[in-house]
Amino acid sequence: MSGAPDTGPHPETGSGPNSGQDSLPKPWPRHGAREGANYRIFRSRWDDLENPRTGQRMERVVLETPDWVNVIALTRDTREIVIVRQHRFGSGGPTIEIPGGMIDAGEDPLLAAQRELREETGYVADTWTSLGSVAPNPAFLDNVCYHFLAENAVLDEAQELDAGEDILVATLTAADAVAAIQSGEISHALVITAMSRALDLRLPNVDIRRVDGRERP
Amino acid sequence: MSGAPDTGPHPETGSGPNSGQDSLPKPWPRHGAREGANYRIFRSRWDDLENPRTGQRMERVVLETPDWVNVIALTRDTREIVIVRQHRFGSGGPTIEIPGGMIDAGEDPLLAAQRELREETGYVADTWTSLGSVAPNPAFLDNVCYHFLAENAVLDEAQELDAGEDILVATLTAADAVAAIQSGEISHALVITAMSRALDLRLPNVDIRRVDGRERP
Repeated sequence: MSGAPDTGPHPETGSGPNSGQDSLPKPWPRHGAREGANYRIFRSRWDDLENPRTGQRMERVVLETPDWVNVIALTRDTREIVIVRQHRFGSGGPTIEIPGGMIDAGEDPLLAAQRELREETGYVADTWTSLGSVAPNPAFLDNVCYHFLAENAVLDEAQELDAGEDILVATLTAADAVAAIQSGEISHALVITAMSRALDLRLPNVDIRRVDGRERP
Repeated sequence: MSGAPDTGPHPETGSGPNSGQDSLPKPWPRHGAREGANYRIFRSRWDDLENPRTGQRMERVVLETPDWVNVIALTRDTREIVIVRQHRFGSGGPTIEIPGGMIDAGEDPLLAAQRELREETGYVADTWTSLGSVAPNPAFLDNVCYHFLAENAVLDEAQELDAGEDILVATLTAADAVAAIQSGEISHALVITAMSRALDLRLPNVDIRRVDGRERP
C-alpha cells in the first residue's frame, strides 16, 4: 500500500487522443521556504514558487500536517459499522464519522488505526485490510489519510479520550450508512472516501456511464 | 440542496439499540474567539472552547475557508470526464482532478461551478445536476464543497487561468476514472467524493455488506 501523492509521471492515465497522457503539468520550481505559525495539528510554511507558465514568483502557504488514518470497523456479531459522534470545531456542530485521527511520528499507519479505534471507541478487531489512502487536500495539505477495514470488532476496553475529545460511540448498518451519506447526514469527506472503497454510494438516477438508460463502456 | 454541515439533531440516523440515536454529542460552549493569520485562501481563528465532558477550557484553531465547488463534466460526444492536471503546492507534485475552485463571496454554487469549468478548461455545458455537498474537514475547516454533474460539455472558449494556475486539460472515460481512483493515481479526496456520487468505486473483493460471499441486508 502506497497512497502518498505521486510526484512522478502518470504514464498509465488517460485514453484516446485527448487524454493528455503525454503532457504533464510542469513542476513549480521552489526557490525557498520560510516557516509559518505552528498550530499543533499542523504547521504553516510559505514556499517561494515560480509559475512555470509565466515565470512569475509567488509565495504560497502549505500546511505541514501529520498523516491521518480512519477505520471502517465492523462488529463481529452483526457487521454493523462502528461510528463516532462528536462536536467538531470547524463546522461548529455534531458529526457522524468513523474512528480515526493523527498518526504519531514514526508510527505505522495500521498500528495508528488500531490505536485510534481502541482509544476512541473501546473496540478491538482481529482482521485488518488496507483500503488504500487519499490526499485530503493536495492544494495546501502535504499529508495523506490511510483507510482501513477492521472486521470482527468487539467492545473490549474503555474509551481513552484525550482532553480535546468528547466522543459518543454507536453503530450503523451498511444500508443506513449509505443512506446517511446520500442524504448528507454523513458529510465528512474522508469518511466518504473510506466508505466509497467498500460501499456503492451512487445517488439514485445518477450514473455517468449511462445515457438515456443505455449502458456505456 | 443543502449540504452544509448539519448542526441540528440527527433523528433519523442509526438503527437498533446501539445506534446512539437518542444520544447526541454535547456542543462545546464557545467563550470567545480571536483572529489569527490571514492566508488568503483561508483565515485562521482561535476559539476559546469548553469541553462539556470535563469542563476544561482550551483554544482550538478554525480555518475560515470559502466554500468550494467541483464539477464532473461529461463531453457531449463521448461522455468522457473532463479532467485537469496541475502541480499542487501541498503535495508538491502533479495531480489529476476535476475542475473546481473557490466560490466567490455571494456567488451561487452553481454559477461558481459553471465559471470554474469555463475558466479552468474552456468547456461549457448545457445540463447541470447537483450532486450534493460534503464537508472537506469539519475538524478545522468551516466550509463545504458542492459537487455538480455537467453534461453535454463542449470546448467553447479559451482557458482563463489566474496568475497562480498552470492547468492542463484532458479527458478520461468513466472506467479509466474508476481504475485511477482504485489505483491511487487519482487521490484528491474531494474528487473522489464527487465521483462516488456517480460511479461505483468499490475495491475488488471489498464489500462490507458481504460475509464469506453471502449478501447481508
